[in-house]
Amino acid sequence: MTLSPERTLPTRDEIFAAHEGGKLSTGLATPLRDARDLAIAYTPGVADVSRAIAADPALARRYTWTDRLVAVVSDGTAVLGLGDIGPRASLPVMEGKSALFKTFGELDSIPLVLDTTDVDEIVETLVRLRPSFGAVNLEDVAAPRCFELERKLIEALDCPVMHDDQHGTAIVLLAAVKGACAATGRDLAGLRTVISGAGAAGVACARILLAAGASDVVVLDSRGVIDTARGGEKGALAAETNPRGVTGGIAEAMRGADVFVGLSSATLPEELLATMAPDPFVFALSNPDPEIHPSAAGRYASVVATGRSDFPNQINNVLAFPGVFRGALDAGARRITEAMKLAAAEAIFSVATDDLAVDRIVPSPFDPRVAPEVAAAVAQAWAAGSTGSDRR
Amino acid sequence: MTLSPERTLPTRDEIFAAHEGGKLSTGLATPLRDARDLAIAYTPGVADVSRAIAADPALARRYTWTDRLVAVVSDGTAVLGLGDIGPRASLPVMEGKSALFKTFGELDSIPLVLDTTDVDEIVETLVRLRPSFGAVNLEDVAAPRCFELERKLIEALDCPVMHDDQHGTAIVLLAAVKGACAATGRDLAGLRTVISGAGAAGVACARILLAAGASDVVVLDSRGVIDTARGGEKGALAAETNPRGVTGGIAEAMRGADVFVGLSSATLPEELLATMAPDPFVFALSNPDPEIHPSAAGRYASVVATGRSDFPNQINNVLAFPGVFRGALDAGARRITEAMKLAAAEAIFSVATDDLAVDRIVPSPFDPRVAPEVAAAVAQAWAAGSTGSDRR
Repeated sequence: MTLSPERTLPTRDEIFAAHEGGKLSTGLATPLRDARDLAIAYTPGVADVSRAIAADPALARRYTWTDRLVAVVSDGTAVLGLGDIGPRASLPVMEGKSALFKTFGELDSIPLVLDTTDVDEIVETLVRLRPSFGAVNLEDVAAPRCFELERKLIEALDCPVMHDDQHGTAIVLLAAVKGACAATGRDLAGLRTVISGAGAAGVACARILLAAGASDVVVLDSRGVIDTARGGEKGALAAETNPRGVTGGIAEAMRGADVFVGLSSATLPEELLATMAPDPFVFALSNPDPEIHPSAAGRYASVVATGRSDFPNQINNVLAFPGVFRGALDAGARRITEAMKLAAAEAIFSVATDDLAVDRIVPSPFDPRVAPEVAAAVAQAWAAGSTGSDRR
Repeated sequence: MTLSPERTLPTRDEIFAAHEGGKLSTGLATPLRDARDLAIAYTPGVADVSRAIAADPALARRYTWTDRLVAVVSDGTAVLGLGDIGPRASLPVMEGKSALFKTFGELDSIPLVLDTTDVDEIVETLVRLRPSFGAVNLEDVAAPRCFELERKLIEALDCPVMHDDQHGTAIVLLAAVKGACAATGRDLAGLRTVISGAGAAGVACARILLAAGASDVVVLDSRGVIDTARGGEKGALAAETNPRGVTGGIAEAMRGADVFVGLSSATLPEELLATMAPDPFVFALSNPDPEIHPSAAGRYASVVATGRSDFPNQINNVLAFPGVFRGALDAGARRITEAMKLAAAEAIFSVATDDLAVDRIVPSPFDPRVAPEVAAAVAQAWAAGSTGSDRR
């Protein structure tokens, strides 16, 4: 297949003009037009509602916006590919994320960016603010701190928490791998997969592929194939992956592989593609610069995907997170379980199957069926898991 | 004058129906319709904006929503007249406040309710969240903790902070006293004023009247006229008030007084009105039940005001806070000074003078001139005070 950019990218002037004054605003469910409206929405009427919630705190879900409100939380330490640019500079990204929640999930959302990178301080801050929101979307927090932060937040908060850079990416990748398999008549369980990058997304992608039935996944970071001598998440992941005991670097890992997943910004030399198994899948997901140009990858691969909107097969988290949070909030879920993530991937894949092709392995982010299907599947997975240890 | 309710109050059913799902939502400055919109508002376009803010943090004011975003912060310890009902039950009030900010000040606003009542923890939480908002409206925090909290927040944050229950009430009261004086040909400096209630609002009302030129103000709490033997804010206030050395209770204080300001929920016996100076002003501001019914007060007083929307002369904070915050944010003010509060009161009064009468001493909350006039006056007062110690 041959690929080229589908559209021209917006200019710098267009981008800055669109950000003038920010991208978000707060709005009112009902306008306040007169004294009677004021007496309903504020004093004295509102006192009845406050009194009712004081008597039964569960009513806060019904009579406040928190039940559909996602806090988009970041400390600005790993913003896009820009690295640790701090909370203020991360804000346009978080506003964008909130805009996506609204557009695709019909969820309200507020960016909360933190002037601390201390895990316990971030947890403490969100615990104190817990009555203010219904769920937490962690965003652009650097690895390995993001793993500890997500784990501690899940323990501390009785509401859905998800680090989207991990699990949003993983859910969409799994849907895309399923789509690529279906479009080419392959079986996920038989694939040899190489994941280049053992940060937030790499670790989560490896885990979800294993959970979905893949058995041969090799994960690398800048030092080569990870092994159990590594500490933290990488060491733990090494114990679950690499069943053939591959050692060395990217060259050794790529030999005979069926799937390449790039999540590291490290350039992939074209000659390594020639060493893969026939008709491989290449997911060059780094943004804005894929590990290998899609047109080069297309000379070897049967399926090519990137993170960019200007090429086909965009692996875009927006296919997952709006529906995942919507489904979790709709279901009143206290957390987001592994079963809910797998259900989300399956739902994205099932929408794609309607019109599947090697350059349409995932639906368009603007396909209106995606978020409702994902939300329904996620809510159902929560309801079905009522006896599972996963939920606790 | 004779007064009666102007309108029927909304029913409980209407009130709860209007709160279904909450009163707020987040919206988008520009809709996301296609991949090009996504590429501007989110990746890859947003990276340019984040990079620009990383290089010059002051650009966050221009390219994010924080420059017009007010955090409405409460711990739920003194909600309306309901007392300490907690953060969850306070949320409908905070959403209402945010709705008022939007409607009257065209400011975005998010409720942040805290599951802690520890002053230092609240300060610490907002310091960590500082990059997320442009100003803090403190709301419904119990006295005397509210004084310490506001003081510490002003020290810790480089942005406008105002406890509205103190200063919003005080600004509007001052405007109303000026209006009552103008409508009846009296002079504020010559008035003897009794303030019943030495909580958040009572203390601030006494202070702003003194700052505006009143000299004879007597403040009472449930134990009687406050004196310097009292601790904290009350003791400090006692030293600045009560020049005639009045002792005792409400009966002693009311004898010969020109103005009664009720901020305590304590019932005012009608016979005490007969002991006041001729044609007094009665501001019975407790909500929902005024200290004395307006029709009873009207038998003695030349001007009667309440906190309620269903009687004339509603002393409603909404006349002040939207314009105060809007002006402070427009001016890029680092704090809200005393001069800005006096300017706000003067602006409200000057709008009222257009159509002044004993039952129209303040403008209607829906008068579209109020918030812009207040904002302009407040911004100008900040700019004019560039050499004042008040600003630091």
